[in-house]
Order: sequence, then C-alpha cells, then structure tokens
Amino acid sequence: MLSTSLASLNSPRSMSLLIRSSYVSQSHLNLFQPRNSKLISFTDRIPSKLVFVSSFNHNPFVDLVYKRNPTMQSVSSSSMTVKSSLIDPDGGELVELVVPESEVGPKMAESEAMPKVKLTKIDLAWVHVISEGWASPLKGFMREDEYLQSLHFNSLRLKDGTHVNMSLPIVLAIDDNTKEQIGSSKCVALVSPQGDIIGSLRSVEIYKHNKEERIARTWGTTSPGLPYVEEHITPSGNWLIGGDLEVFQPIKYNDGLDHYRLSPKQLRKEFDNRQADAVFAFQLRNPVHNGHALLMNDTRKRLLEMGYKNPVLLLHPLGGFTKADDVPLDVRMEQHSKVLEDGVLDPETTIVSIFPSPMHYAGPTEVQWHAKARINAGANFYIVGRDPAGMGHPTEKRDLYDPDHGKKVLSMAPGLEKLNILPFRVQQKNHFCLY
Amino acid sequence: MLSTSLASLNSPRSMSLLIRSSYVSQSHLNLFQPRNSKLISFTDRIPSKLVFVSSFNHNPFVDLVYKRNPTMQSVSSSSMTVKSSLIDPDGGELVELVVPESEVGPKMAESEAMPKVKLTKIDLAWVHVISEGWASPLKGFMREDEYLQSLHFNSLRLKDGTHVNMSLPIVLAIDDNTKEQIGSSKCVALVSPQGDIIGSLRSVEIYKHNKEERIARTWGTTSPGLPYVEEHITPSGNWLIGGDLEVFQPIKYNDGLDHYRLSPKQLRKEFDNRQADAVFAFQLRNPVHNGHALLMNDTRKRLLEMGYKNPVLLLHPLGGFTKADDVPLDVRMEQHSKVLEDGVLDPETTIVSIFPSPMHYAGPTEVQWHAKARINAGANFYIVGRDPAGMGHPTEKRDLYDPDHGKKVLSMAPGLEKLNILPFRVQQKNHFCLY
Repeated sequence: MLSTSLASLNSPRSMSLLIRSSYVSQSHLNLFQPRNSKLISFTDRIPSKLVFVSSFNHNPFVDLVYKRNPTMQSVSSSSMTVKSSLIDPDGGELVELVVPESEVGPKMAESEAMPKVKLTKIDLAWVHVISEGWASPLKGFMREDEYLQSLHFNSLRLKDGTHVNMSLPIVLAIDDNTKEQIGSSKCVALVSPQGDIIGSLRSVEIYKHNKEERIARTWGTTSPGLPYVEEHITPSGNWLIGGDLEVFQPIKYNDGLDHYRLSPKQLRKEFDNRQADAVFAFQLRNPVHNGHALLMNDTRKRLLEMGYKNPVLLLHPLGGFTKADDVPLDVRMEQHSKVLEDGVLDPETTIVSIFPSPMHYAGPTEVQWHAKARINAGANFYIVGRDPAGMGHPTEKRDLYDPDHGKKVLSMAPGLEKLNILPFRVQQKNHFCLY
Repeated sequence: MLSTSLASLNSPRSMSLLIRSSYVSQSHLNLFQPRNSKLISFTDRIPSKLVFVSSFNHNPFVDLVYKRNPTMQSVSSSSMTVKSSLIDPDGGELVELVVPESEVGPKMAESEAMPKVKLTKIDLAWVHVISEGWASPLKGFMREDEYLQSLHFNSLRLKDGTHVNMSLPIVLAIDDNTKEQIGSSKCVALVSPQGDIIGSLRSVEIYKHNKEERIARTWGTTSPGLPYVEEHITPSGNWLIGGDLEVFQPIKYNDGLDHYRLSPKQLRKEFDNRQADAVFAFQLRNPVHNGHALLMNDTRKRLLEMGYKNPVLLLHPLGGFTKADDVPLDVRMEQHSKVLEDGVLDPETTIVSIFPSPMHYAGPTEVQWHAKARINAGANFYIVGRDPAGMGHPTEKRDLYDPDHGKKVLSMAPGLEKLNILPFRVQQKNHFCLY
C-alpha cells in the first residue's frame, strides 16, 4: 500500500525523498473536525492520491549513508547510570532559574521590598520560557546589548567568540510610571497577572523601547494587524527592562494541561530514559493531519535505516499566545492524544509535550527561535515545512512571507549549524504545494 | 595650549581618552562655509571651549599597552619588495572583477547577444563597488541566499564556516518586462544610464523583490521619506537578479574627481608604499571640521605611542548618492584638499580618497557596511562617532536611530571582530553631546 524510494542518492545537491502513497487509509482521515469555520477541512487539504515529497537541503541522511558516523551514540544498556549523549544545549549548560526550595522564603521576603513590575499573561509565558532554559544561555530578559544583537544579527556572541542563535527579542516592557518607581533600584520583583510575586530581576538595565524599529526588524513589516504586536507590543510601555531572572517556583497554569508542560531538563531526562540516540522535533500549532503523521513515521524509519538505534519524536505543539482563529490548545492536545491512542504515531517512540512559547507569527525570524529552543530540549533534528510561523499579510492579499524563506533562513542561521534541518513539502502530482 | 591625558588606564571597562583643549586656534575654524542654509555653521557646532572625549569600547590601546603586540608589523625598509602586512580582505582575497584587457573584445561581443538590463546611476555605483572588491568576498549582485543572510543576519557564512560582515543587501532590481525578456537566459548584459554595455552578470538567479520586507529589515522603519528608498527602491522593479559580475573596464565618472577614486587595491598599494603598519579610516559625508581634525591627529599620536611606527589616516568621504540637503561631493573634496594644504592634517600620513558607495542613511545597519568596506581597503582601525549613517526620522520629531546604537552594533557585529573600533564623542563641559 505504501512504497518508498530514495531518489537521486548519487546527486546530493538535488536529493529528494519520495513517498508515493496510492491509498491513504480512511481511518487516518478526519482525526479532528475543526470547529473553526476558517480552517480548511482535512479532506480538502490531503487528497487520497498524493505525492509526498520530502527534500533534505542539508542532506543529513546522505551524510549518514556515506559517513556512518551519527553524532549521537546509542546509550549502552549495560550501563547502570544513563549517561546522556544528547546534543549540548546552547552555551554548553542548560539554564535553570527556579531558586532552590531552601532559598525561596528569604528570596520572597526580600522581593517584597523591591519595586514591582506587573506582568501580562504573555510576559509570564516568557518568564516560564526563560526560567526553564528554552532560551539558554539567556539568563533573564534581555539587556540592550543582547536586544541589539538579537534584532540585528539574530544571534548572540558568547565570551569564547562562538555564536548562539537568538532571533526573537525576549524583552520585558515597562511604562513611564513603573520606570519612575524603579528609579535607581538594581532589583525588581515580578508580579503575576493574578497579583502574586513570582520572581525577580537583578542587576537591571532600563533602555528605550523603540517599538517601530523592533516591529520592523522582527516582522519585516510595520503593517497594522500583526497579532502579537496588537496584543502585546502596541499596548506596552516605552521602556525595556533587562536583568538576571530568578523564579520562586516552576510556572504552572492549572488548566489541566500542566502534565504536558515538560521542561527541557525533564524532556532530556525522558529521552535519556528511553535511550534515544536521535531526537527529531516537530513544532506545530494546529491539529496533526495525516500528511504530518506520514512524515513523522517516515522520518523515524529513515533515521533507523541510517544507523540510529532509537530515534524519538518530540511532537511539540506551541502552548503560548496564538491568534484568535487558531485552534485552542486544549482541543489540539486532545487531538494529539488521540493520534497516539489510535496508533497513528507510536507512543513508545513519541513524546507529546507543550512548548510554552508565545507565537509571534514572524515567519523566518521566528522559525529560528522554534528550532533553537528545541536544541535546548535535546533535539538534533528539526522538521520544517512550508511557510513556518507564517500567516497571511494583514493588509494585502498575499502571504506575509515567501513560503520558502523559512527553511532557507533556518538552514543558514548562525548558531544552528549543529542542528539537522529536515525541510519537507507535500505535493500533488501536478506539483501544487498543499502546505 | 593643548593637553592630553589618558584616563583610567587601569580600568579597561571604563577607559576614556580625554583631550582638553582650552583654546582652539581660530585658523582651524570656518575652513568651509556651507553654501546650504540647512547646515549649521561650523562655529555654531564647535565651541571655542570644549571637552573632547574619545571612549574606546574595544580598548585596542589598552590591549596594545599590555600586549605590545600590534597585529600589523612594520614593513622592513631594507626589503627590496614591499611585502604587505595589511589586514586581510574579507574572504582572504580581494575581489577584482574587471576583465583582463585581452578578453574585453570577445567579452563585449558576446554580451551584445545577451538580454539587456538597464542600470540606474545608483545601480552603476554598486557595479563600481562590487567590481573593485569593496564588498569582498561578494562577486556580483546578491543571489537569494546571500540576500537573505544579509537581511536577517547582516553577515554571510563562508564555506569554511566563518562569517564575513554584509549588512546591506547589494542587489539589482528588474521589472516584469526585463524579467520576461531574460526568460531562461543564464547571462545578461549590463547597460549604463548612458546606454553603453559596461559588463555582464553570469549564472543569474531571479527572485522576488519584497520591497516592504527589505525596507523594514534594513531601516527598521517603513516610514515614507527615506531618501534611498524614495530615490532607488520605490521606483524599482518587483524582481531581483543576482549573478557573477564582470566589468569591461574600471568605472569612471569623468567629473574631475576620478583621481580621488582609488580602488581597494590601489589604496593597499599606497599604504604599502608608505610602509603603513596601521591604517585608521574615517568615513564622512560632510566637510571636515576642527573636532574631526583634532580627533584624527590625536588618533595617530596614540597609535604611535602604542607601538605602531607609521599609522596612516584614510580620510574617506562617501562619493555615491546622498540626500539633497547634504553638501555636494565636489564642494566637500575641495574642502578636504584645503585641510591638507593648510596643514591641519599631515599630507605625509593622510590619504584622501572617495568611497564610491551610495548612502542608505540606515544607521546601525549601514555603519557596518562602511566599516567592512574599509577592511577590504586595508584599514584595521575604524573611527565612529555619534549616530553614524543616521538622520532625523522622516515623519516624527526625533532621530531615526538611537545615536548610541551605531557604535554598539558595530562593536558586536559578526565578521568585524578583527577590526578595531574607535568610538568617539565631542562634549562640552556640561556633557552635552555636540554630534
């Protein structure tokens, strides 16, 4: 029913992986019936006869065939201690900013006396992201040097002269009043939307928040109607405050989904427990459809063929802010669970977890962040499709980004050289791209 | 009359170089009387009592004091052949794209049959820039991979994994008709504004010209009123064409100033002839005023004190497109000559030459280009002031860029690590920045 062929193996520059499926099991269809009328129904998007083309620009498989030298080694099962062979986090060490339990009391008491900065829901999500090390080696909201490097170079230079990727400014805005209240204080307490002090910023630096420049350089447009801008930047203050973050306890949402929110440390532990010698990450903010499932299963098969013993899939839906017409997180998580229950994806070799980042819809700039954060969670393969993190232009009848720029930019991005990028596209026989 | 002191030598992070001048010779004032009423007169800008502060973020002098290890060695005068010890051009080899004289005939004949691309005056300036290797290792107008790296990362990754700086997209736009005429041709002839075929592009690649994204990412704004955008981008076509450039003869302007237009190769030869062991470049697009002159003379003095035998100044006015209210090139060149004639700058240790690049007024993004191009001409020190390549916001009452961002971005820019950045500012005693 399903035949695969590896085409053009002798021509690495043009290699493409073809999966020809003359019949797609109906049981895989309509796994999820979108409740939002703006979404195209699944059967509209995936024809029963399709040509499924996965092109590997970086050709990691070709490298593997010829070199037989996977960078991640299988973990010896005879070893009593599981020694991790996962990809190193950016900067060499995973950042963790939750203070030890013994220090929480004194730290909280100390923070009571500090000037307060009230966080929005999105700010809190970034506190979550930073505190768990998704943005390693970043240790807090960006100071100006980091902000400028992120904005201009999409990367940060480390002390040893190497670069890590950092494509989105991870910043905290404050208004004039808050700035005045902070005055010359070097520390501020961070207050959740519910009014609780949840952590602090130390050795703070306050600098101007030039919103126009930030938006233009991040999105490549200043058009009105960008969801993250309208929700989070336009209403924010004219100053940014950077500093070293401390969080008093792990960020929780109490929405029934916290058990899905594994930190990079927890994910790495889980990959090690499963003796994963390759981790391939799939970022998504929509329900899994059959094309995705085929791709993910095939990727594992290819990794096995190329010498890895146990490639594990990180199915990693984004859990932070999304635009109003995206499918809500709880609905998506239910659908993702069903995909595993139904055996469409193998639960033994798949971990479903929530990526806590808010969504920028900043296309080629944002996809770098999506990939970089997964390195920190232990992934050394990253699957990327058409127009990642893209959307329609808010005021013109076209895509905001060239649909091919995401994977191109990703494959050239500073600091992501160690990550294997797996671009894919689904085509009908007439070569019309489906997504 | 003039006393200098090197402050805080033991505190490298806060080192600043103070030049206190209680009296500025009147003979140095009013070297140039601006003919444009929009310019502030010289005496308005430079008070007779001033504190002149040069702060060296990179502290190259401190390094030199402690290491006594200048990267450029003095050229031995006993050697018959002058062996260059100048800084390497980006990519290791200076790009030169003027075809050898013996090949000009056949190449020109061949180009007659190619589809034609008509150049604007600014396009021609870029042909000039690329053909002489100012943008080394770039060998032609950017293809999409180079364009995307420039736009997103301000740098290009070379095959060996290292990066060179490349902050401005150096691209050639064509319209729908021209694209259609080119069809599937792999080579195009380049036609000057005067109608002459001046060169060709080979192995061409045509890709979309998303003007909004290009402008937003280059300028950090999409506001109307950006001079380069209005002059050159808005009227241009919807496609970009990249490829390998060949030029049939060196680009000349026949405006009486061509003798000032030394190529990077010619400049390097001149520096070698003068046995320069340090070259410090000063980019400007306005008349030299007394503050500049003091700074340049003092920089040479400091370089001598720190162990260099013969630091040479490259006084390097920009000669390409400038906005209407800037001082015209011929007037500026006359003034620069007078500065040397009057002995304000020493002709023995100063080379005045024209930098052929058009001006973007893109602030922190553009200053990287200004610095990078001077590396290719042999400069290993680059002087940068307040708000380099900046201008007023075209629609708001403020500077378009934070005046400090230029030097900050420059000091962190990928590919410019080998360049010594010399930031400076002129202050009155009340610490008000003059420029």
